[in-house]
Formats: sequence, C-alpha cells, structure tokens
Amino acid sequence: MEKRLFNFSAGPAVLPVPVLERLRDEMLCLPGCGASILEISHRSKQFIEIQETAKQRLIRLLKIPDSHAVVFVQGGARLQFSMVAMNLLRGRSQPAQYVVTGTWGKYAVGEAKKEGPLEVIYDGASHNYSKLPQWSELKVYPGASYVHLTSNETIQGIQFQSDLHSACPVVSDCSSDFMYRPLDISKYGLVYACAQKNAGPAGVTVLIVRRDLLDRSSDNMPGYLNYRNHVNEDSMWNTPPTFAIYTLGLVAEWLENTIGGLDAMHALNQKKAAIVYSALDRHPNMYSGHAAKEDRSLMNATFRLPSEDLESAFLSEAKKRGLDSLKGHRSVGGIRASIYNAMPMEGVESLAKLMDDFASQKG
Amino acid sequence: MEKRLFNFSAGPAVLPVPVLERLRDEMLCLPGCGASILEISHRSKQFIEIQETAKQRLIRLLKIPDSHAVVFVQGGARLQFSMVAMNLLRGRSQPAQYVVTGTWGKYAVGEAKKEGPLEVIYDGASHNYSKLPQWSELKVYPGASYVHLTSNETIQGIQFQSDLHSACPVVSDCSSDFMYRPLDISKYGLVYACAQKNAGPAGVTVLIVRRDLLDRSSDNMPGYLNYRNHVNEDSMWNTPPTFAIYTLGLVAEWLENTIGGLDAMHALNQKKAAIVYSALDRHPNMYSGHAAKEDRSLMNATFRLPSEDLESAFLSEAKKRGLDSLKGHRSVGGIRASIYNAMPMEGVESLAKLMDDFASQKG
Repeated sequence: MEKRLFNFSAGPAVLPVPVLERLRDEMLCLPGCGASILEISHRSKQFIEIQETAKQRLIRLLKIPDSHAVVFVQGGARLQFSMVAMNLLRGRSQPAQYVVTGTWGKYAVGEAKKEGPLEVIYDGASHNYSKLPQWSELKVYPGASYVHLTSNETIQGIQFQSDLHSACPVVSDCSSDFMYRPLDISKYGLVYACAQKNAGPAGVTVLIVRRDLLDRSSDNMPGYLNYRNHVNEDSMWNTPPTFAIYTLGLVAEWLENTIGGLDAMHALNQKKAAIVYSALDRHPNMYSGHAAKEDRSLMNATFRLPSEDLESAFLSEAKKRGLDSLKGHRSVGGIRASIYNAMPMEGVESLAKLMDDFASQKG
Repeated sequence: MEKRLFNFSAGPAVLPVPVLERLRDEMLCLPGCGASILEISHRSKQFIEIQETAKQRLIRLLKIPDSHAVVFVQGGARLQFSMVAMNLLRGRSQPAQYVVTGTWGKYAVGEAKKEGPLEVIYDGASHNYSKLPQWSELKVYPGASYVHLTSNETIQGIQFQSDLHSACPVVSDCSSDFMYRPLDISKYGLVYACAQKNAGPAGVTVLIVRRDLLDRSSDNMPGYLNYRNHVNEDSMWNTPPTFAIYTLGLVAEWLENTIGGLDAMHALNQKKAAIVYSALDRHPNMYSGHAAKEDRSLMNATFRLPSEDLESAFLSEAKKRGLDSLKGHRSVGGIRASIYNAMPMEGVESLAKLMDDFASQKG
C-alpha cells in the first residue's frame, strides 16, 4: 500500500489511524448488521445505538451537564452562523455581541446581522487578527441576547485558552478546536463545531445547546433551522448524516479509550504545539509567527518565511520528507501547520526537524 | 466475514458492492494522496477533481444541458423544502402550486407556506395517497412561481413515470428515485434529491437548477440557503461533505460503466419491479398493494397482509432467509420492499420466492 504522509491540512484533516482501519474493516458489513454503515436505516436499532453511543461519549468527554442537549446536524459552521442568530436573536430587541478575532468571526457577523440587532465589541482588524483581547477588556452587556466568540481562528492561528464567563449566554464556534481540551460547558449557552477539523469527517456539525434557550426558537422559521426540532427529535428530525456521525463516534472512542480523555489530549496538544513553536522561535531570522506568542493556537501554527521563494522551497522540501498540506490559507499565504488531535507526535517532530534543517541550510 | 443480507431499507439503502469494496480498499490511502478521502482538504487538487468528475458523470448520465447547474449541498430534502421556497417564492406575488401525492409532498407544503403564497392543486388524501393524478388533470397556472411535485412517494409507494411539461418552472423532489430512469432535465426548473435512497450515502443532496432562476434569490437570505452562492462557488461556498460526494461519484461511475447508463438502469428497474409485483398479484388473498396498479413505484413496493400477525410472521421468515428491513414505514405499517438501483436481481428473486412460499404455506 501507498505510504501515508503526515497531513497538516487545516480541514478536512488527519484522523486517527485506528479509526480509519475500523472503517475499512467494517465497510462491507457492520458487525451484526449484514450491511455497511452506509446502507443501514437511521431508524434501525443499530444506528440508533451508534448515535446514542457517540452522544454519550461526548457527554462523558466534555462532562456535559443535563442542562445542555447534544445534537448532530448538517451544513457546517457556515449554516450555524445563520442558525445561531435565527434561533437566539430573531425578533429580540437586545443585541447580540460579537467578538471578531479573525476570518470566521467576520463571516459569523455577516450572517447574523441579517437576523437582528448586532454589536461588534471587539475587532482585531487593526493588527491583522494577530492577537486576542483579554476577557476583562470585553464590555459584555449582561442583557445581551448572547455574546459570540470563535474559540480558534484557523486561518490566523490564534486561540482562546480559557472559558469566558458572562451573565448573558456565551455562544462559541469551536469548529477548529472542538475537544482539544476540557471545556466548562456550564459557562456556555451554545457550543457548535463542524467535525472536519478536530473531531471527524466533513458533513456533521455538533451542537451543545442550553435547553432553556430553545424557547427562543419560533415555529415559523424553516423547520430544519429550528434547534428545537433537532433536540426534540434527538437528531432524527430528518435523516442524519449517518456515516459522519459513526466516524465522529469512533474518534470520540479513541479519545476516551486510547488517549484517556480530554485532560490527556490537552497535555499532548500542548506538548506537540511546544515542539513546533520552539523550532519557530529558535530561528527568528527564518520564521516569523503571525500570532502574538501568548495567543498562539495549539491547533494551527501560522508563520511566514523571509520571501515567497523561500516559502516555496520550504514546501518542496516538506513534500520530499512526506509532510503534506503545509501551505497557508489562500487569503493570507505563508505556512500553516495544522496539528489537530490526531496528528501524531512523529509528525510534529518531523516538522520541527525540517524547520531546523531548512533554517541551517538556507539561513 | 459476516454474510451480507439483502437490504430492502427505504434509505439509507443498499449500495453497489464494488463501490463499497473500493471505499474499503482506499480507506487509509486514496491513491496519489497519502491520506484517506476523509482527511484531504476540499481545496486539494485531488478533491476538486473528485467533485468535478462526479458532477460530469451526472451531467452525462442525465444529459443535463448547459442551461442547468449541478451542485452538492447538505441538509437533505427537508432543508430543500424550505430552500426551494426561500429562493424561488419569497417576495413574489404569484403563488407556488403544490401537487401532494404523499407524506413528503405534505411536508414540502408545510415548509413552503411559511415563505410565500401557495396553492395545493392536488391532494390525494381522500384515497390515502394510493394513486396519482394525470398530468392533464392538473390545473397548472403558467404564471405560477413554480409547480412542485414529488416524483416518488417513498412511504406510499407511488411514482410518476413521466415528466410534466409546464410553462412555469417544474420543481421535482426526486430524492427517492434519482437516476432510476433518464429525465428530460430541460422540462424542469429544479430537480433535487438527497442521495441516501438511490444515489449514495446520507449527507449529500444534489440540486440541478435552471440558471435563470438563480436571479430570484435575495442576498438578504442566509448565505448557506442561497442557491446562487452554491452555484457561483461550484459547491465550495463552504466545506462540502467530501466523503458523501466521493461515494455518490463512485455510484455514478457504476451506473455509467457497469450498468451502462440510465436507459439500461431503467430497464433493469422495470424488470426487478415486475418480479415483485407479479408475486404480489399471484396471491391476491395474501397480499394487497397500497398503490393503484398504474401508479406503482419501481422503487418502493408497499403491501399489506390480511393481519398484523401474518405480517410479523412474514418478516420473521424473511429474516431467516437473509432478507432485511422489509417492515413498512411506522406511519403506515405493512410491508415495504425498497428495490433501488443497487438492489441486485437475486434480492428481488429471493423476495418473490418468499412471497410465493409464504402464500402457499399460510394462504
């Protein structure tokens, strides 16, 4: 078989090998089913159990309290940018407050302002989204409909490392760092995350929503967009993306049983990020990080080299060594190393070695 | 390995074995990628080619003219019930006309009427959705915003076998019979189909939309719900459901190269359905079909036995013979045999044999 590369893609992204092996082994016949996971009814006993198991794993991993419901939907974070505001803001006079720390936060504002009154209480545009505000800087109004954050800005590579506490509901787009560390879910009104960066394949989005907020959703809105429908029908308001949910459940199983939970995952992520950022800091003449040091993302390390020619040479050398998808987002250029949960330690060690070698040779 | 059963599930449903084998063989490493199809970026050269190939196969199979665009979205037919009306009806004074021939048509009306003026021009409730109108019976108003049909009602098992021609745009929910036969796409304003019944796994929905209708979509609507965004960005307005699109493309490849196109598929489907319905008609004391004979679906054969006890006994005997998921939809009961494109001839032959044997033994 062809050799697997170390895949630094920002999403869809690397998955744990044991998960892929299991999907492979079961592709023609899910044990006890006589059919593939792709072929069984979402109403079958087997799939209902698969979905419930995935949900219960998330509840255990994130210690999700009964006050919050967990559902799986389609459409990605982009659809959530609209759904959040359609469910939690539409028809209300108190504005939603948005903290814009990068590209995804800006997109979230673009959709939400179509739905109701909105106030941007922080925007990092002046420093090109290279640092984050302190929680204490944010003028969060306790009566706001909600305050919206992007926990990790994938393109810029900056990440909040703690939870905001606020009297109004905190809504967090955790798409690119879902389950990278434990979260205090009790502090959130809504956490949403498309799976394809840190938690599974493209095609499923996880919502963790405080149940009392469901009262805000109007029956007049499009049925699929109404959070209450998905919660009331336990993610079966319509056919869920069965395979994506199954895979997400296997990733959660790997987090629980192989990694040992989110504290262990967090420690590993800190260790992996430290290896990459140490290499970066060892060669200040060759690599300049985009993010302020204190706000560096544990998921996406973004940096530039002195010239685009050197960046191309770096990417070529990476490819020779089996390190793939290190090119920065087309909107910002440079290099981006996405080192999500499933990126093995060997991958970041190979990257650090490349960074050292390249700096020695070309510096 | 465990034995595969004949899977008569109404959706998610049976897929071609060669497609599953290929997914299995490539699960850890898509040739030339060094990563799984689940792990590669939707912006990678490889995935862009995968999606384009899938699209081109649909264009060839259905002879889709340049006047129509093909896109892949998430959310299933349920989200389309809203999106159709948000894009094509909202803000217009001329009503949309709906032809309600079963459960899914009713749901479509429920969502569309939230968005604009709507007129139901046919409703089969009086005969419990057991037959279809003639095209000539329908009073389609040439100035209507559109006329909406459900080409196959999965739960009732009735199916239009020809295309409606109308001066106003025809919108057809082809979710449960997409690509069962050639369609004259030039007659349609919009064809939409979730994949998980006849064309692939759950999690992707195909839209074939006449380009001039895109002018109706307002920029003020939620971005994900705007058809124009998906067409303008060639299904990359946000991260598409990459694996589901890949699988749908493999199913289309199977239709083209193994089956030999949609005329051949249609002939096979007619043959398979004839085997099941002949068995049904041979034993009128044991089996009574729900659908009027002339409106029987080639995809879902629905029938009752004289008692629920006999239906249970029939299902038990089926299970013993390796025939699975024959229970009718919970809303109507009885038996439903879904015999989609990928159901092999041996499956329907086994079912017909069971029907004969059971009628002889218990009749």
